[in-house]
Amino acid sequence: MKKVAIQGGLGAYHDIAARNYFGEEIEIVPCLTFKEIFLKAQKDEHLIGIMAIENTIAGGLLLNHDLLKLNDMKIAGEHKLRISHTLSALPGQRLQDIREIVSHPMALMQCSDFIESLPQVKVVEHEDTALAAREIMEGNTPGIAAICSKLAAEVYHLEVIREGIETNKRNFTRFLVLAHEEMVPEIRKSSDIDKASLVFVLPHSEGSLSRVLSVLSFYDINLTRIQSLPIIGREWEYQFYIDLTFSNFERYRQSIKAILPLVGNLKVLGEYVEDKHIVAD
Amino acid sequence: MKKVAIQGGLGAYHDIAARNYFGEEIEIVPCLTFKEIFLKAQKDEHLIGIMAIENTIAGGLLLNHDLLKLNDMKIAGEHKLRISHTLSALPGQRLQDIREIVSHPMALMQCSDFIESLPQVKVVEHEDTALAAREIMEGNTPGIAAICSKLAAEVYHLEVIREGIETNKRNFTRFLVLAHEEMVPEIRKSSDIDKASLVFVLPHSEGSLSRVLSVLSFYDINLTRIQSLPIIGREWEYQFYIDLTFSNFERYRQSIKAILPLVGNLKVLGEYVEDKHIVAD
Repeated sequence: MKKVAIQGGLGAYHDIAARNYFGEEIEIVPCLTFKEIFLKAQKDEHLIGIMAIENTIAGGLLLNHDLLKLNDMKIAGEHKLRISHTLSALPGQRLQDIREIVSHPMALMQCSDFIESLPQVKVVEHEDTALAAREIMEGNTPGIAAICSKLAAEVYHLEVIREGIETNKRNFTRFLVLAHEEMVPEIRKSSDIDKASLVFVLPHSEGSLSRVLSVLSFYDINLTRIQSLPIIGREWEYQFYIDLTFSNFERYRQSIKAILPLVGNLKVLGEYVEDKHIVAD
Repeated sequence: MKKVAIQGGLGAYHDIAARNYFGEEIEIVPCLTFKEIFLKAQKDEHLIGIMAIENTIAGGLLLNHDLLKLNDMKIAGEHKLRISHTLSALPGQRLQDIREIVSHPMALMQCSDFIESLPQVKVVEHEDTALAAREIMEGNTPGIAAICSKLAAEVYHLEVIREGIETNKRNFTRFLVLAHEEMVPEIRKSSDIDKASLVFVLPHSEGSLSRVLSVLSFYDINLTRIQSLPIIGREWEYQFYIDLTFSNFERYRQSIKAILPLVGNLKVLGEYVEDKHIVAD
């Protein structure tokens, strides 16, 4: 059985993404932080990881981009999931009983309109949506509610007080499936690779990015995402994360060779199969 | 006296940025949210705003990009500030007395290593670093500390327990100075405009971004930042925010005309003077 490390506990959105991607029974290895996934994987070459990388509301998760750059695991696949949050508490609790809401900062932000409609309620951060739900169950604490998935409410025997409380219903997260290089072929959805993610550094000179993108377009490579990121320690200089899609893998490999002399510190973060459908949780 | 709306209370980092930019006595108008700045400005054509737009640790503040796109205020200037956080509480409190830390989610994230070193402490979100400090003063509550600026600790008569608690010391934030179009010339640092910010939409076709950047480079325009953002409601399509610098303003204006037929929904968010120095708070 495949072992998949996720940030968060059972019922976390990463858990849902992992089950959707593999569609078979897997063993979930809960981690408190994204960094812990990579640390655990250093000691276990068969460990697979799942990590959110961007969200239609919050944009790119920048620290996770750094983790990809600094570690050896490769992107083996991606999964796009619609995120819908619930407010859940001990059975029998009603909305007017709730005086404190606990969840992950990202989930709290995504439900900001709902939270603003409850001015008397205290908002408390937690590392994880699902673990927040578990603590309410374990502590048997009335008056506290978690913002979490419907699955987490089920797993920890909480009652859903409200569902669909996210401000924007078009709230999608893109998750990456990570694995050691030798494991990647087994984990890819198919051998028809049509997407890749890269990171590189460019000098701050006129046209440096334009040259790179021109070369990619000459090779019929499509750019689906670009993000310039500050380089910590060299303020206001930038590195670039880009996602490419293509129909011809050989052409893509040639294009990478062609841009190599134009960029610094190029790293291919993964070559995988694009997820063309968005799954509702 | 100029009236400057900021997110947060007196002593907030936005307050520091405003005072640094204007270098003269100003009237600060505290707002609870960034949106409130724009709402207040709709009723007062002389109101100036200050808004963080990117940070070397967290990257771009995406919701603030949206506010710029959807509202009429223009970028009249920018200010880059090094952010250094303190842990502050009622006078006489020591680190071991603190059982709860309150601050803005961004500040909490920036001090994550310090917070992780205090496993017994509860972490509570607040809308603002400075208002968190004020509440401790007003409530006269021992055992609670705020993560806030040194200025906020002073303003609200708190004692600094630890300073420089940010995980990465190279923590810089870029603030934008916003004003109604008629006010912009008065607020710009000088008439030597050398920077502009744009937003536009591109079709997902091969080479569409490459063409735009090529045209800009033919006009000797330098790209200092690019961010592709998801368009909410049209998932996994992207709009682009870019910052440009240039030495010839006429050339820059010509380049904008030249890219106009290649992009959709182009909006110039502002034309201003680049801040070339970073000020420590």
